[in-house]
Amino acid sequence: MRAGPSQEEIRRHNLGVLLRHVHLGGPTSRAELTTKMGLNRSTIMALTADLTAAGLVREELPRETGRAGRPSLVVRPESRRVYVLAFDIGVDRVVAARVGLGGVILDRREAVRDRGPFVLDDVVDRLASFTGAMLKKTRSDTVCVGVGVAFSGGVRSSDGVVRFSPNLGVEDVPLGERLESRLALGIPVAVGNDANVGALAEQARGVGVGCRDLIYLHGDVGIGGGIIAAGQLLGGRGGYGGEVGHMVVNAGGRPCGCGSRGCLEAEVGERALLEAAGRFGPQIGRDAVRAVVDAADRGDIVAQDALARVGDWLGLGVANLVNIFNPEIVIFGGMLREIYLGAAAQVRSRITTDVLYASRENLRLRTPILGDDTTLVGAAELAFAQVLADPLDALARVGP
Amino acid sequence: MRAGPSQEEIRRHNLGVLLRHVHLGGPTSRAELTTKMGLNRSTIMALTADLTAAGLVREELPRETGRAGRPSLVVRPESRRVYVLAFDIGVDRVVAARVGLGGVILDRREAVRDRGPFVLDDVVDRLASFTGAMLKKTRSDTVCVGVGVAFSGGVRSSDGVVRFSPNLGVEDVPLGERLESRLALGIPVAVGNDANVGALAEQARGVGVGCRDLIYLHGDVGIGGGIIAAGQLLGGRGGYGGEVGHMVVNAGGRPCGCGSRGCLEAEVGERALLEAAGRFGPQIGRDAVRAVVDAADRGDIVAQDALARVGDWLGLGVANLVNIFNPEIVIFGGMLREIYLGAAAQVRSRITTDVLYASRENLRLRTPILGDDTTLVGAAELAFAQVLADPLDALARVGP
Repeated sequence: MRAGPSQEEIRRHNLGVLLRHVHLGGPTSRAELTTKMGLNRSTIMALTADLTAAGLVREELPRETGRAGRPSLVVRPESRRVYVLAFDIGVDRVVAARVGLGGVILDRREAVRDRGPFVLDDVVDRLASFTGAMLKKTRSDTVCVGVGVAFSGGVRSSDGVVRFSPNLGVEDVPLGERLESRLALGIPVAVGNDANVGALAEQARGVGVGCRDLIYLHGDVGIGGGIIAAGQLLGGRGGYGGEVGHMVVNAGGRPCGCGSRGCLEAEVGERALLEAAGRFGPQIGRDAVRAVVDAADRGDIVAQDALARVGDWLGLGVANLVNIFNPEIVIFGGMLREIYLGAAAQVRSRITTDVLYASRENLRLRTPILGDDTTLVGAAELAFAQVLADPLDALARVGP
Repeated sequence: MRAGPSQEEIRRHNLGVLLRHVHLGGPTSRAELTTKMGLNRSTIMALTADLTAAGLVREELPRETGRAGRPSLVVRPESRRVYVLAFDIGVDRVVAARVGLGGVILDRREAVRDRGPFVLDDVVDRLASFTGAMLKKTRSDTVCVGVGVAFSGGVRSSDGVVRFSPNLGVEDVPLGERLESRLALGIPVAVGNDANVGALAEQARGVGVGCRDLIYLHGDVGIGGGIIAAGQLLGGRGGYGGEVGHMVVNAGGRPCGCGSRGCLEAEVGERALLEAAGRFGPQIGRDAVRAVVDAADRGDIVAQDALARVGDWLGLGVANLVNIFNPEIVIFGGMLREIYLGAAAQVRSRITTDVLYASRENLRLRTPILGDDTTLVGAAELAFAQVLADPLDALARVGP
């Protein structure tokens, strides 16, 4: 237990809070910032001046407000000047983007990945080549303030080493370090589990804005969970928390890539659905999952049964999580979006049966606003974390 | 997002931090406080002077240190003068205690409860009568700074209403309010779920000291969970988080008091063990559970099989929680202490099979240091929360 912060620490914290307001909320008047931050006008003015001098925001007159009197200046993020690189490495695709302060996607590249073995150097090469192409198109007065990666696997929070990813066949791969040296931008690379950063994204810019207790479930081939409890991302001791895909829901059930049986992802993942629908074959991936849901919609009884079965296990898993976390919202992202939309009745029925009534009051079940960009946007937010925590210090460290 | 704190808020925070140090760590020298809190000597002296003037601590010369030079004064909590009332309401017993600052149990009363229906007024009467007897014995210069209750059920964090307790047959009972008006001490009553406050107790004074990611499992008739993630107690939206006893581990399994089937508490609770051992009858409760473990120890094959079966489900539940939370430590309290000690092999085996290896590195499985007082001590810590958060303000509100 340490004592409270010093005046200088408070100033740095306040700079970060102000920057976060305009990063997440967009252009904001000084008057609004005064109210939202509970500080007086002169303090807000001084903080804004510091951020403006650093080139992180700019102030300008608002558009016509229709009100009399001198309008309050509006503080805008310098989205074209200050940006991060965001990468999303999934089972079926690799995405790279340049994202401006304020969350604007300025540039974006995507490549399909086949499901062969994961070769670290190939993926790093691909991301480096995307980065080179994107950087060639940036102006010289821009500054990259962070690099973030969303990865479909368990990531050690301290150093960005991927510890496990049963579905990519990966163990102990130094992804962060390798990418950092390959990009050679002199900027640390932050690596996060895709579902974890997806939870951050949906809370920051998606369907979970304002929620302090949120569960984001991400389906790829497997299932990952990103859990925000009391406003904080659940990491656990090493950063591996949230592995809800390996919660056993059907003891002795289907074998799972992790070596156990009956895990949520073994009962609900892509393969479980396709096998139950008699469609496990050469066509796999998201399109194959969509095809089952579409067939069920059109009245195909085998597809309907498969979805009901998988939806029931999904509902059981979600019910367990709701009993454990008492969240405000559960969000079904990635491939789980399709499955949830096709089996919402089963999921809701399980929640009614298996969740204590106090914990299901006002519970919302949703799909992501950010769609398939949830994990990419999350990688960008991960990359922005440093500059939002201590803007001037972060800028000094990456500065031109 | 609010701005950082004011100077006055920092001072109040620092007073609380200093008081917490001596409350949890016992007598502490000014020099140690300087180091631990990262503040200079004159600030520590000023803070200590304020707390001394308020009668919360006193300073005295340490015992012989064996070192030359002027010894640093030692700051001690005023344990005899400043106290809380702590109550623990379980299925089989009701406990009341007067606990001094620093965690000293000054007085304690206990009554056996039979398993008849829960009658709020009876329990409140009993606690009030215990309180009257304890207060009669306190000196007139003492001050009660809080009242805390541990209850075996789901408690709404905002107002202390017990929302559910399948094992006590309770729904929506205004326990906090009723007890507050019956005690008529002019002090708010804080009510918490027994497993939640048990987690706080083991982290503050038990086997989990220093752990930021901790799971405390409490067995009574049912099973509750208290989860601390990144140093914060998991509450969820309404405060009902941690209901791990209603995680379904055996879909379609044994019926549970909550209306579902195959919940952890239905497969691992007292009744499951006694039935599996062919001993479900008039003798129930902790002694009956111990008798099964003892019989298994002595080679009784039926008892051994029952323990192995129950231990396997317990292990599966714990494995799920370890995958979800990646904790440093899991603590088995209440009746689960007996079951864990009798079935540790099954629990460990399930963890090896079902938990991702990164999440089980360095995981510790333990029983409480505080023994059967874990939940009572937790109720006391709940009661101390106000005075530790803002000592002078709290004292002014309850002051004589």
